[in-house]
This record gives sequence, C-alpha cells and structure tokens, in this order.
Amino acid sequence: MSGPARPEPGLSPERLAFFTDAIFAIAMTLLAVELGRPDEKELVSVRALGSFLVDRRNSYLAFALAFVLLWSVWRRHHELMDRIGGLSRAFTAWHAPFLLLVAFLPFPTAVIGTSIGNPLAQTLFAGTMAAMVFCEAVIKDIAGNSGLVTGDPAEIHRHAGASWGVGLWFVLSIGAAWLFPYAFVLWFVAPLAATYGGALISRLRTSPAGHPDLRNGDRPRT
Amino acid sequence: MSGPARPEPGLSPERLAFFTDAIFAIAMTLLAVELGRPDEKELVSVRALGSFLVDRRNSYLAFALAFVLLWSVWRRHHELMDRIGGLSRAFTAWHAPFLLLVAFLPFPTAVIGTSIGNPLAQTLFAGTMAAMVFCEAVIKDIAGNSGLVTGDPAEIHRHAGASWGVGLWFVLSIGAAWLFPYAFVLWFVAPLAATYGGALISRLRTSPAGHPDLRNGDRPRT
Amino acid sequence: MSGPARPEPGLSPERLAFFTDAIFAIAMTLLAVELGRPDEKELVSVRALGSFLVDRRNSYLAFALAFVLLWSVWRRHHELMDRIGGLSRAFTAWHAPFLLLVAFLPFPTAVIGTSIGNPLAQTLFAGTMAAMVFCEAVIKDIAGNSGLVTGDPAEIHRHAGASWGVGLWFVLSIGAAWLFPYAFVLWFVAPLAATYGGALISRLRTSPAGHPDLRNGDRPRT
Amino acid sequence: MSGPARPEPGLSPERLAFFTDAIFAIAMTLLAVELGRPDEKELVSVRALGSFLVDRRNSYLAFALAFVLLWSVWRRHHELMDRIGGLSRAFTAWHAPFLLLVAFLPFPTAVIGTSIGNPLAQTLFAGTMAAMVFCEAVIKDIAGNSGLVTGDPAEIHRHAGASWGVGLWFVLSIGAAWLFPYAFVLWFVAPLAATYGGALISRLRTSPAGHPDLRNGDRPRT
Repeated sequence: MSGPARPEPGLSPERLAFFTDAIFAIAMTLLAVELGRPDEKELVSVRALGSFLVDRRNSYLAFALAFVLLWSVWRRHHELMDRIGGLSRAFTAWHAPFLLLVAFLPFPTAVIGTSIGNPLAQTLFAGTMAAMVFCEAVIKDIAGNSGLVTGDPAEIHRHAGASWGVGLWFVLSIGAAWLFPYAFVLWFVAPLAATYGGALISRLRTSPAGHPDLRNGDRPRT
Repeated sequence: MSGPARPEPGLSPERLAFFTDAIFAIAMTLLAVELGRPDEKELVSVRALGSFLVDRRNSYLAFALAFVLLWSVWRRHHELMDRIGGLSRAFTAWHAPFLLLVAFLPFPTAVIGTSIGNPLAQTLFAGTMAAMVFCEAVIKDIAGNSGLVTGDPAEIHRHAGASWGVGLWFVLSIGAAWLFPYAFVLWFVAPLAATYGGALISRLRTSPAGHPDLRNGDRPRT
Repeated sequence: MSGPARPEPGLSPERLAFFTDAIFAIAMTLLAVELGRPDEKELVSVRALGSFLVDRRNSYLAFALAFVLLWSVWRRHHELMDRIGGLSRAFTAWHAPFLLLVAFLPFPTAVIGTSIGNPLAQTLFAGTMAAMVFCEAVIKDIAGNSGLVTGDPAEIHRHAGASWGVGLWFVLSIGAAWLFPYAFVLWFVAPLAATYGGALISRLRTSPAGHPDLRNGDRPRT
Repeated sequence: MSGPARPEPGLSPERLAFFTDAIFAIAMTLLAVELGRPDEKELVSVRALGSFLVDRRNSYLAFALAFVLLWSVWRRHHELMDRIGGLSRAFTAWHAPFLLLVAFLPFPTAVIGTSIGNPLAQTLFAGTMAAMVFCEAVIKDIAGNSGLVTGDPAEIHRHAGASWGVGLWFVLSIGAAWLFPYAFVLWFVAPLAATYGGALISRLRTSPAGHPDLRNGDRPRT
C-alpha cells in the first residue's frame, strides 16, 4: 500500500500482522477465563474464599506464565514483521500451524493449572510451547532465506537460532518432567535459552556443515 | 482514504476487511474453548490424563480441521480484498450471512468433536461449511460482476468457481455421511475440489449457457 | 494522521472506530458460545441429536436475530464514522454506554433463546436493544450538532431520526410483549421502523417545536 | 511508517496501540460472559425470572462498574498514545503486567458480583485495579522521562500523578473494606481521586524532594 510495488494479492504484511495480533490477544485474554470461579459456598466467608484462592494458586501461576510466554513470542513476531518488506507463500502458510498452537495454548494451561505435578500435563504444555517456537524459528528462517527482510538476513538467522534454542529448551524440559516433579521451573529461565542456546545454535549453523541457506527451499538466495 | 475518490460512507474496504479478520480470529480462537477440560479425577495420574486425552482425540482432530478450514477461507478472503478497489451494497450485505456462519462454526465443531460417527452431526458441520463457502462464492461473483476488482474480473470468476466447487464437495459429503460412517475424510481433500471441481465449474460457467454476468444484478458490466 | 491538523490527544477517530469494531465482532462471535452444546447422551443417535436440535430451535433463531441486529447497528456506525472528520468529548463519552449494551446483548439473547414466551425475557432483550439504539441516536445527534461531520449535518439528523424510530419500535414491542406471546415478531420488521418511523420523527424534529439543535449542548452550531 | 525516521524493529507505536485495544475490547466483552445464565426452572414464569434477576443484581452492577473502569483506563491510554512519538524498550515491557491485569479483571469482577460483602473479594478487585493503574502511572512516567512524548513532558507527568492518585485510592479502599461492608462505594468516586489526589501528588513530585526525573532510569532527560 505504501511501498513502490503493490504486493501480490493475499501477501500484504499488514493484514497478516493484524490477524496474528488478534489471535494472540484473544488467546491471552481467554487464559483468564480458564480460572475456576468460586461457587457460593466458597464465597460465604473470608476464610472460605481465602482457602479457595490458596488451593488454586497453581492456576494463577499458570495463567501468568502462559501470558508472559505468549507476550514474549508476540513481541518477537512484532520485531520480525517490522523487518519484513513482503510476504512469500511459505512464510504465510507456516503461520497456520503457528497460530493454531497459540489458539490451543489455553487448553494445556488449564491442565497444568490444575495438576502441575503430573508429568503428562507438563509434557502437553511444554510440547505445545516447543512446537509453537519451532514454527516461529521456521518462519524466521524462511524470511531470511527468501529475501523478505529489509535489513541484514544474517540478523534474522541469529533470531531464528534463538528461537530454535528456546524450542529445544522446552523439549529438554519434557525429558526432565519425567524425572523431577519440579521440572517446570525450567520454563521460567527460557529467556536464557534464547541468549546462550541461541548463540550456540547460530554458531553451529553458520559453520559449513550446517549452512542455513540449504534448509528451506522457498526462493533461496546466497 | 488513500485512493483518488473517497468511497461512499459505509463502503470503505479497510473497515470491512478488518471486521472480517476480527470475526475469523475470534471464531478460530474460540474453537479451543470447546475442548473439554479434564476434571480433578482425570488429572490424578499419568494414566488417567492419558486415557482422558485419548478418549477425546476426535475433538482435537475436529479443532485442527475447523481451524485449518477457517484459515484457508480467511486466506482466500484476504486475496479477494487485495484485488478489490471498492465495495458495493450487495458485496457488503452478503458478508452478514457469511460471517454469521463463521461465528456459528464452533458449535458444529463441538458436536462432531464428540460424535463424529453420527451422520446428523456430520450433516450439521458439512452444511455449515457448504453454506459459508457458497456465501464466499456469491461475494466473489458480485465483485466480478460489479466492477469492484482492480485486475481482471475473469480471474475473480475463476476463484468463485473454485469456491462453488468446495461448497458442492461439502454438499456431496452430506450425502456420503448417511451411507458411510467415515465420510468425513472427504473434508480433508476439499482443496482438491477447489482445484479440479473449480476448473470444471469455471468451464461450465464461461460456456454460453451459464454465463456468469447474467447472475447477480448488482451493477453488472460486460 | 492524514488530516491537515492533528486531532487533540484521545480524539483520533480511527482508534475509536477500531475499538467499536472489536467490541461488535467479539459480542457477535460470543453469541454462538451461548448455544447449549449437546451432552454425550444427546449425541448417541441421529434421533437423539435431532430432537436436541429441534428443542433448541429458539436459541438458533435468537442467535441469528441478535447477530443480524448487531450487524445492522455496526453497519450504521460504519457509515457514521465515514462521515465524521473528528471527535468531541461528548461524542466519545456516549460510546461507553453504547458499547456496554453491545457487550451485554449476549446475555438477553441467551435468555430469550431459552424462554421466548416469557414477557420479562422479551422485555430484557427489547429494552437492551432500545437503549443501545437510543445511544446510537444520541451519538448521531451530537455529531450533527457539534460540526463533526464532513458533509451535510441535516443528513446525520435524518439518520438519527431513523435510530430514534427503531428505538421507539423496540419500546413499543415491550408493551406488546405483555399482551401477546408472539410480540417478538415485531423485532423482525424493525428496519421498517427505521424507514417510516424515522421519516416521521425527522419531520417532527425539523418543525420549530422540536428543533434538534436545542438538544445536545456540546458545541452547538446553527 | 509515516514519520521521517522508521522506528527500530518492534517499537512501532501503532501495533502496540492496536494490541492494547484488542486486549481491552476482549476483556470488556468477556465481562458479560461472567453473568450467570438462568436455567430452565428460573425461566418458567415472569416471577421466577424476575427473582433470578433481582438476586443477581450485584453481578450486573459489577459488570457495569468494571466495564466503565476499563473504558476510562482505555481512554487515558488512547490519550497517552496520541502524545507519543516513539516507543522505548521499558515503555513496551511495562505493558506486559499492565495488560495481564486487564485480562485478569473479569475474574475478580465475577467474584465481587457474587459476594460484594466479602472483604477479601473487595481486596481482590481493588488490588487488581490498583496494580493496573500503578502500571499505567509507571508507563506514563517512563514516557515523560524518556523523551517519547511529542508535546510537553510536564503534562504527561501530571497525567501520571492522576494515575498514582487513582491507584492510591484503590489501595485506600482495601483498608476500608475490612472496616465497612460498603467500602466498595469508594470505587464509584475514583475519578475524584484522579482530579484532587492527582493534583496533590503532582505538586509533591515537582518539589525538589520528589523530582520525577530521578525515578525511572530509562534514558532520562532534563
């Protein structure tokens, strides 16, 4: 609309950015709907309401955790879209599984809110997060490989490396969940995985053996 | 707002596109709210949660199917709006039943998620999808006939033909649902109906007998 | 943003239009969430699901009715905003009760969907609609009186007259609800009230006795 | 996009404003979903529905109160963003707890709607509101201190003072809730706290002892 060439129909970045924002905002607000409402008996006195709230403390923690995780994924998507000059079919198509997992997240959040100690519940939550962040990483790599970015593609690949790092961290936490009941604390330090794991992955990928340009076949450029 | 002539009040494409996006995003995110949450007894152990999740596998499949179907309808609407230079009253009015059916879809999705084998449940879902896609086809034909498109109207009519093809495919699946319990697998190959059925329908319509210009009377042009 | 003078902070029309769109889209999509989902027993056979759907036919009708009513109010708001060049404090403030009633509408819709024959249920629905449409009429009159419109203020006042007509029609239907069980059919012909009642009200108001400029004191102009 | 210098990736004000709008609109519309729907027995007669509605009068009041409070916070955010020329990392980051509390508000609203007389319920609601308004105040102070505003930073600090005033008012109401059952009436006069308390706080802060520039360390300027 404001660029020199009008984008191909269906490939205007503004509308995809808007749609992504809407899905994130709705999913994040629906997280609070999952929180169990007290019934009349649990509201009859300060003590009754107090013990209701204390009993459900894990669901408030799960709400806050999922909200902050989705917020940080949204922020990274915001940064990505601000570097993008146009869309490709593959870039757009990978938003379908990405947003499906965002919309799905309230379900595993409700599950861990009720039974954080259950390893299968932790697997469900960490698996959804890992798959979501892997989709994010693929989207970034496609942007870097297809010449969609306005700046330096190497920077996008570094960001993709950070996303791969966060995703692997969640996969790792799945393994830990079956060994230790408190493995979920690993989720709170996921940002460290972005910083340290991301730097490691980026170094591995820029070495000849793992050249990122060889991965996604959507209009690659050297 | 940015074109040479300001559109008539109520006919600015941006706001209709935005409203459509919002309805789609909300309906797609609400699909996940339909998924039954496990109660405390079903969360007590890995085995209990595991059998809960396996029991409900159809509702996760229904969620993913409805999400992907709505995503593809939204993508086609995005492409349509990028070809549109203005709105007509009829074009806008047909969005009311179209969006009503989008908003309604979480209901049949919940129904098939619980009883996919029930032919009436399949009829409800496929009927809603067929009606939604027929509305989409009418909207495209109106755009082509009313001179709203900026490019070649014949291309919009080809797209409308693909939509009619997908809609007829869903109608066909209703008939099949009463004969075979697994007729719903037809829904997963609906994109093929767009490609092959759409080409067939477009050929039939461009023959003299089924000329598309004779259909919708909203400012037709030759 | 695009006009010659930047609007006063908090009075940019785009963001108010957007916020209104979002509230309408969410309320309209949530209408479908109100529809009772069948439980497993009601899904066991075609007959069971069929009688479930037939029993609830009123709630599907109520969903469609409320969706179409909200759509038409949204369309009129879209037309209004396309005629507006700026906002005033009063114009914006009246959106608070207006949008509150839009957000509230799913509640009376659920109530009439379950007991359309109950006169109090009809009163609740028609009263919410009447109050919403009266707010719409006040907003239009403020726009006309405060010089916010880019075209002819008299046209906005005619539109306001139509809104007052629709609102009075809903008030009238409340009276009828206590006399006849099927008074709700009056709601389906509300558009006629806009056309005929609106013309009548506009004529009364432009006569010296009911001059519209004397009503809302927010920067009146002659 | 329209300014002379393109903002740094992830720091375009439009998308943050949009995201904030979406969260507010969804939270405000979901408030009405909290309202308990009458079951069939409560709909059987005018008397039954009447006593149902009268019994729940507090939840309608809570809905209207929370809607109006969120509306006024949204309006102030709208005014703030219209004064902003760019974003900083701290300004954006403080939106995470701010919007988390907005999304959370439907939960305490449901709680006070059922048991307004319970002091712990009032504490939960007033505490959420206080924390939300404090976040708003911090966001405004950051905007003033970091040179993000296009006009006079002193005006933003006066607005921040009003927000601190409203927040303190809610904190005060928590204390009152444990002494008087009707302390919640203080919430209805919160706007007075913005006017009078805000003026007081602004005067205290501009005195040498409480200089606002010493507070937030995000790119301070004199």
